[in-house]
Amino acid sequence: MKQVKIFDSTLRDGAQGEGIAFSVEDKLNIVRALDEIGIAYIEAGNPGSNPKDLEFFARARGMRLKHAKLCAFGSTRRKGIAVEEDANVLSLLKAETQVVSLFGKSWDLHVTGILNATLEENLAMIEETVRFFKEKGKEVIFDAEHFFDGYKENPDYAMAALAAACKGGADTLCLCDTNGAAYPTDVKAITEKVCAAFPSCSVGIHCHNDTGLAVANSLFAVDGGADHVQGTFIGFGERCGNANLSTIIPNLELKRGTPCLPAGKLAMLTQTARHIAEIANVPLSGGKPYVGHSAFAHKGGMHIDGVSKLSRSFEHVSPETVGNERRFLMSEVSGRATILSKIQKIDPTITKDSPETKRIMERLKQLEHNGYQFEAAEESFTLWIYKELGRFESHFELISFRVLGECPFPAEDYTASAMIEIKVDGITEITAAKGQGPVHALDQALRKALMVFYPTLAQMRLTDYKVRVLEPKGGTAAKVRVLIESTDGDNVWTTVGVSEDIIQASWEALVDSIEYKLLLDGQPSLH
Amino acid sequence: MKQVKIFDSTLRDGAQGEGIAFSVEDKLNIVRALDEIGIAYIEAGNPGSNPKDLEFFARARGMRLKHAKLCAFGSTRRKGIAVEEDANVLSLLKAETQVVSLFGKSWDLHVTGILNATLEENLAMIEETVRFFKEKGKEVIFDAEHFFDGYKENPDYAMAALAAACKGGADTLCLCDTNGAAYPTDVKAITEKVCAAFPSCSVGIHCHNDTGLAVANSLFAVDGGADHVQGTFIGFGERCGNANLSTIIPNLELKRGTPCLPAGKLAMLTQTARHIAEIANVPLSGGKPYVGHSAFAHKGGMHIDGVSKLSRSFEHVSPETVGNERRFLMSEVSGRATILSKIQKIDPTITKDSPETKRIMERLKQLEHNGYQFEAAEESFTLWIYKELGRFESHFELISFRVLGECPFPAEDYTASAMIEIKVDGITEITAAKGQGPVHALDQALRKALMVFYPTLAQMRLTDYKVRVLEPKGGTAAKVRVLIESTDGDNVWTTVGVSEDIIQASWEALVDSIEYKLLLDGQPSLH
Repeated sequence: MKQVKIFDSTLRDGAQGEGIAFSVEDKLNIVRALDEIGIAYIEAGNPGSNPKDLEFFARARGMRLKHAKLCAFGSTRRKGIAVEEDANVLSLLKAETQVVSLFGKSWDLHVTGILNATLEENLAMIEETVRFFKEKGKEVIFDAEHFFDGYKENPDYAMAALAAACKGGADTLCLCDTNGAAYPTDVKAITEKVCAAFPSCSVGIHCHNDTGLAVANSLFAVDGGADHVQGTFIGFGERCGNANLSTIIPNLELKRGTPCLPAGKLAMLTQTARHIAEIANVPLSGGKPYVGHSAFAHKGGMHIDGVSKLSRSFEHVSPETVGNERRFLMSEVSGRATILSKIQKIDPTITKDSPETKRIMERLKQLEHNGYQFEAAEESFTLWIYKELGRFESHFELISFRVLGECPFPAEDYTASAMIEIKVDGITEITAAKGQGPVHALDQALRKALMVFYPTLAQMRLTDYKVRVLEPKGGTAAKVRVLIESTDGDNVWTTVGVSEDIIQASWEALVDSIEYKLLLDGQPSLH
Repeated sequence: MKQVKIFDSTLRDGAQGEGIAFSVEDKLNIVRALDEIGIAYIEAGNPGSNPKDLEFFARARGMRLKHAKLCAFGSTRRKGIAVEEDANVLSLLKAETQVVSLFGKSWDLHVTGILNATLEENLAMIEETVRFFKEKGKEVIFDAEHFFDGYKENPDYAMAALAAACKGGADTLCLCDTNGAAYPTDVKAITEKVCAAFPSCSVGIHCHNDTGLAVANSLFAVDGGADHVQGTFIGFGERCGNANLSTIIPNLELKRGTPCLPAGKLAMLTQTARHIAEIANVPLSGGKPYVGHSAFAHKGGMHIDGVSKLSRSFEHVSPETVGNERRFLMSEVSGRATILSKIQKIDPTITKDSPETKRIMERLKQLEHNGYQFEAAEESFTLWIYKELGRFESHFELISFRVLGECPFPAEDYTASAMIEIKVDGITEITAAKGQGPVHALDQALRKALMVFYPTLAQMRLTDYKVRVLEPKGGTAAKVRVLIESTDGDNVWTTVGVSEDIIQASWEALVDSIEYKLLLDGQPSLH
C-alpha cells in the first residue's frame, strides 16, 4: 500500500504566522509532541535568517526521537558566490541535522524580477547547493518555491529547476504553492507530470491556504502521485496559514486509505493538536475539522436526536478514531433532551414535562441572554439546576469583601490586596491577602478564610482563567465573561461569571468553583 | 456567462454553530449587510423549530431589500399527517417569505432508521410539501439532506427523492453534504448527473466543512453544473461550520471567472465579513482567506522584500480587490525594513545602520519576550520609538492612584471607585470617580483630572477593550495583555499594556492611549 511521509513545518513556516513566536523551550516541547504521534520529518528552523535557531538545534541534538527526523531549512546559495563560502549555507550545515530542506526559485519571474539573477545562474545555484549537502551526507529535500505559478507561466523553466535539483542528487522534489492560489485539478495534473518526469525522486507537496484550498490541493497532489506532504500541524503560517496536517492526516488515513502515521497513532490527533495550541498559546479554533472542540458538537435538536439513534447519521467518522469526543450542547436551540439528561443526573424523578424542567429552561434562556454561556462551563449550570430545584445549600455566606489597588509613583510599585469576611455555621472569619492583581488577592483571601472550615479546599487549584469582553464597544465599561477552570487532581471543572465588573465576574466564577468542589466532596458520583 | 446565485444561511444554519446566538436586532442588521453586498438569497430562520423566528420575519417584512430575497426554512411534512395540517408547515407559511427552503431525506438510511417512515411515504412527503408551497405562490428550494452519502449507498433512491421534489414543482434542487465528508471529484461527478437528469431545475450545493473540503466541494459542484451555492458568510455552522462564502465568492469571481455578486460589490467583501463577525460578537480568525486581518500580512523578511518589489510575487490577488489591505508585521523576524520605516516617519535622518535602530530592535525583542505584541497595537510601539529616541515628553506625571472595590452582602451591591493624583507643569490635580469595575473607575478618574489641562481629551473615547490571558496555567495570577482601541472621530489607534495585574495592564494601555492622542494633537501628520 502507498505510504505518505508527513513533514511538519510548525516551527519554521508556522512561526511566520501573525502572533506566533516560539521560545527554544516551546520548540523542544513541540518536537517531542510531533515525534510522539509519529511525524516523519520535523522542520524546526532557518539557521541562516535566525541565528537563535542554532541554539535550538544544538539542544535538539541531545533528544532521542522515536519516529521523526529533524530538518533545518535554508536557501540555495546566493548568486555570484561559491556555495562553500555562502554564510547561509554554512549556517545551515552547522545545524547538523540529518535532513536539510533547500528552497530555490522555479518561477522565472522571481529569478529575474526579485533575485536579479539570470535563469541559468539560478539553475546552477540549485544544482550546486543540493550537491554540496549531498556530499556532506545529508538527505536533501528541494522546495521548489512558487512551483505551480511558475509552471503555469513557463513550464519548461519550472521543470528545469526540478531537473537541476535532481541532477544535484535531491532525494525529494517538493512542489510549493507558495502564494496559495492553485486549483486542485491543476495540482493533480502537474504533480502527475512531475512524477512521470522524475521517477527516481520522491515528490512532495507544500500548500498555503490563501484560497481555502490547501487541504484539497494536498490531497489532490497525493492523488497525482506525491508521497510526501508538508504542512503545519494546526495550520499556522504566514497570511492564511499552511496546509493543516491535523485535517490532512485523518483525511488520508480514513478517507483515502493512505497510511501516514505509525499504526495506532491516529487516536492521538486531537490531544497533539491541543497540546501544540497550548504551547503556542493560541486558542485552537473550535471548528477545526477532526480536532476542534466543536468538531463533534451537536446543537440542533434534530441532529442530537439523529446522532443518538445512529451515530453515522450525523457523524462522518466516530470521534474516538481521532481522539475527540461527541458533545451535545446546552443552549436554547438544543432542545430539552440535553438539559433533561443533566437534570435527571441530579433528580431522576423529573421528566420532560415537569414544571422544574420548564423553569430551568426559562432560566437558561434568561442567563444566556445576559451573556452567560454554559457550553464551556457546565458545572456552573449544574449549580443552577441545584438552585432551581431548591436543593442548593451554600457552604458559606459572604459578609463583605473589599479589594484595594494602590499605585504610588513610580508605577512599578503597584500592590493589590483584599480583605474578606465570611460566615460558616454562625462562625465568622475575617482575613486578608495580597495578590498579583485584585482578582488574585480576592481568590487568595477567600480560600484562606474558607480553609479554616473546609480543609479539602487545599487539594484544589485554578488551572485556567479566561476573560472575554462581551460588548467591546463599551470600552472599559464593557461587560465581561470570566471562565475559571479548576482541578483537585481527580476532576476538572469550569465555572462562569458575567458582569460589567471584572472583579464581580471573577468572584462569581470563583464562588461557583469552590461550591462545586464542596458539592463533589459530598457526592463524588456527580462528575 | 454563467452566473451563480449565492444563498447565505448565517442566520439559520450558522446559528447552529457553538457559541452563536442572534437577537432579532442582530438578525436584522445581518440581513442589511448581506443585502448591501448583493447576496441573492438570505435564509433567516426556521419558524417551525424556533417560534421566536416568526417575530423576526414579521419585522423583516417592513425592510426594503435591494438585492436579496428572504427565505424561511422548514421540513417536509411529518409522516402520517396531511400537509395542510402539519404545524411546522403552517409556521413556515406564516413567515410570509417569497422563498422557502424545504429539507427532506434523500438517504434511505435516514428514512428507515431515523424517521421510521417507508421509502415510499418519504417520497410522498417531499412531493406534497413542495407542491403545497408552490400552490401558495412560493419559490421553492428543495434541500436534499445527506444527498452525497445517500447517493453513494443507494443512488436510485437519492435520485428518486429529487424527482419527487421536481414533480412537486421545486425551482431548485440543492444537494447537501450534511455530514461534510464528500470528496470534490465525487461531488463534481454526482452534480453532473443531477444536472443532466433534471434540466428544468436549478441545481444547488450545500456543504459542511468536517473534512476541510467545503470550499473545494462547492467549487467542484459549480464545475459540475451547479448554479446555486449555499453557505454562511464567514463559515458559521454546526460542528466544523458551513462552507465559507467569503472564500467561495472571490474564488468564483476571481479564479473561476464566474460572477456571483452584482458588479462592483466584491470590494465590500472584507468589511461585510468583519461587520458580521462584530454583530455576532465572534472574533474573525486572522487567517481567513481574503478577509482575515492577516490574509495579506507579510512577516518573513524575504517575503516583505519580494512583495515590495513586485506584489504578485507573494500575493495571489491584490488585497484591494476584496477590500482588504497589505500589512508588514513588526516582529523580530520581520527584518529591519518595517521597523525602520516606522522610525523614519519620526526621524528621517536615521538609517538602518544607526545605533538607534539597533537599540529599538533590541527593545522590541525584549518587550515581545515579556508578552507585548505590537502587531495590533502599533501606536504603543510608536510611543516606544519616541522614548528610545529621547523625544518623548510625558504630558503628565502620576503621583498615585488607588482603586477600591467593595462588596457588602448581598453581592449585587458591588461598587468600584478610584482616586487619582497627577501633576502637570507643577500643578497637582486630585480627583475621584466611580465606575463599572475598577478599570472603568480609573479610566474615568484619569480623564477627569487631565481634562482640566487638556480639553481636547473630551473628543476622545475608547471603542474597544480586550483582555487576553497570556499564561492561563497561572490561574488568577496569570499575566494578561490588555488592548485598548480609541478614537477622536478622525483617527483610530490601539495601545497595549502587559502585567500580572489587570489594572496595571489596563493603566499602561490607557496612559499610552491618552499620550498618543496628545501627541497627535501636536503632530497631526503622524497618523
